[in-house]
Amino acid sequence: MKLLRYGPPGQEKPGLLDAAGTIRDLSGVLPDFSGDALSAAGLAKLAALDPASLPAVSGNPRLGPPVAHMKNFVCIGLNYADHAAETGAAIPKEPIIFLKSLGALCGPNDDVEIPKNSQKTDWEVELAIVIGTKAKNVSEAEALDYVAGYAVCNDVSEREFQIERGGQWDKGKGCDTFGPLGPWLVTKDEVPDPQDLAMFCEVDGHRYQDGSTRTMIFGVEKVVSYVSQFITLHPGDVITTGTPPGVGMGQKPPVYLKPGQTIRLGIAGLGEQVQKTVAAA
Amino acid sequence: MKLLRYGPPGQEKPGLLDAAGTIRDLSGVLPDFSGDALSAAGLAKLAALDPASLPAVSGNPRLGPPVAHMKNFVCIGLNYADHAAETGAAIPKEPIIFLKSLGALCGPNDDVEIPKNSQKTDWEVELAIVIGTKAKNVSEAEALDYVAGYAVCNDVSEREFQIERGGQWDKGKGCDTFGPLGPWLVTKDEVPDPQDLAMFCEVDGHRYQDGSTRTMIFGVEKVVSYVSQFITLHPGDVITTGTPPGVGMGQKPPVYLKPGQTIRLGIAGLGEQVQKTVAAA
Repeated sequence: MKLLRYGPPGQEKPGLLDAAGTIRDLSGVLPDFSGDALSAAGLAKLAALDPASLPAVSGNPRLGPPVAHMKNFVCIGLNYADHAAETGAAIPKEPIIFLKSLGALCGPNDDVEIPKNSQKTDWEVELAIVIGTKAKNVSEAEALDYVAGYAVCNDVSEREFQIERGGQWDKGKGCDTFGPLGPWLVTKDEVPDPQDLAMFCEVDGHRYQDGSTRTMIFGVEKVVSYVSQFITLHPGDVITTGTPPGVGMGQKPPVYLKPGQTIRLGIAGLGEQVQKTVAAA
Repeated sequence: MKLLRYGPPGQEKPGLLDAAGTIRDLSGVLPDFSGDALSAAGLAKLAALDPASLPAVSGNPRLGPPVAHMKNFVCIGLNYADHAAETGAAIPKEPIIFLKSLGALCGPNDDVEIPKNSQKTDWEVELAIVIGTKAKNVSEAEALDYVAGYAVCNDVSEREFQIERGGQWDKGKGCDTFGPLGPWLVTKDEVPDPQDLAMFCEVDGHRYQDGSTRTMIFGVEKVVSYVSQFITLHPGDVITTGTPPGVGMGQKPPVYLKPGQTIRLGIAGLGEQVQKTVAAA
């Protein structure tokens, strides 16, 4: 299934994308994609529905992030060997965890704000894992039992804030609109091998990132198990798993985003995002 | 006013503490302490109530954290000159920001879990700033306009997870129960000088921390203004502002928490917390 949330910010309704690409309204079936709705039992209930029996949504509504009531927007840093190399960093011995502000979360095609005083806003296409069931100290072997599915995430990053302003990366990762997620939550049954997905990111039609989850250092099971040792994961939480090479910081010379540009990014089977960059109000 | 939330976890009701120390039920007045309830106008409405007109709550209910629907649990690192010295770190040139998982948030007297595989769980008494109004890129001069009040926070930290497990501090700051907050949100009118508050932390009756917000490097106005440049702050969000000397890591030799201990901490005018330490389930 491709689950999504549509409507104005803060008023999104749950829906699903049917085989013809039409949005079907799920708001008569469940209040939102959070809590038990994302568990194996909750997803089985949705899978048993005939999409044709659900109201078709007309027009082309805005998409919101495909999960509601997130508690943790977790990121894994430097999780592609070739990306670590382009940033000049060592290969991590164990996963690097940081957090994005929940305020960064936005719809897949919402405008991305260039923060006030930013000179180094950068892109990062990433495979996001969406948690379906509360996970605390879970093993690698059972990790996938706690995963509802996957989504595309743009881990937008301000490199000066992240690296040059003292101490911790969170400063450059949590600005408003720095976390477009979606278009859909693709349930895991439709993603047989999350470690073999092509992924790309383009800015104004120039393809900067052209990679695959094959070069991920710590894979999905490892990452879910590992994070759950430190941070208890709740339904609707997201772990975004790092980016392949080709970020702006890695260009020679570096290239950063300016207002008025278009970012397009996607992952095979998980859909695409398109964002326009704007100056923050 | 001393605002609080009482009742079982996840089912807390809003209340206030009257002059006699009795909890008065506010659930007939507002749904919870979040959103507009924490704005200047929202707090003025509460201040206009006669506490004697509100139902008295009998017994001794559990207290929850005094805010609901938090989006950002922001922490400032190494914000006391003498604490930076005890950890061997340099005085930061600008505030260090990191984030706690929202799952860390708990009531002021809830048990504190020692995580599985933890050897270095530590305490940190801190002055927490509670945001009352959405703040983005606000100046130092206007920063206090966005503050609802203050609370005590124990920024519980696992030092091995934080420092020795690769990269970013968030790994050692966001375990379940690592963020006791309260007992109350004390509105700012009752805290004329937040930079002159005595604070302490004791473990099993031994006073390890005995400091004052006077030795804070970056004060409340600076911290609110600074964070708002990177992370938009929302009503109910908390910035906890760093700890004075006397953490376990700073003892010679270091001292860390074990299950079965009692932590007591407090700040002048803001009340006290008492936690028992337990092994994580």
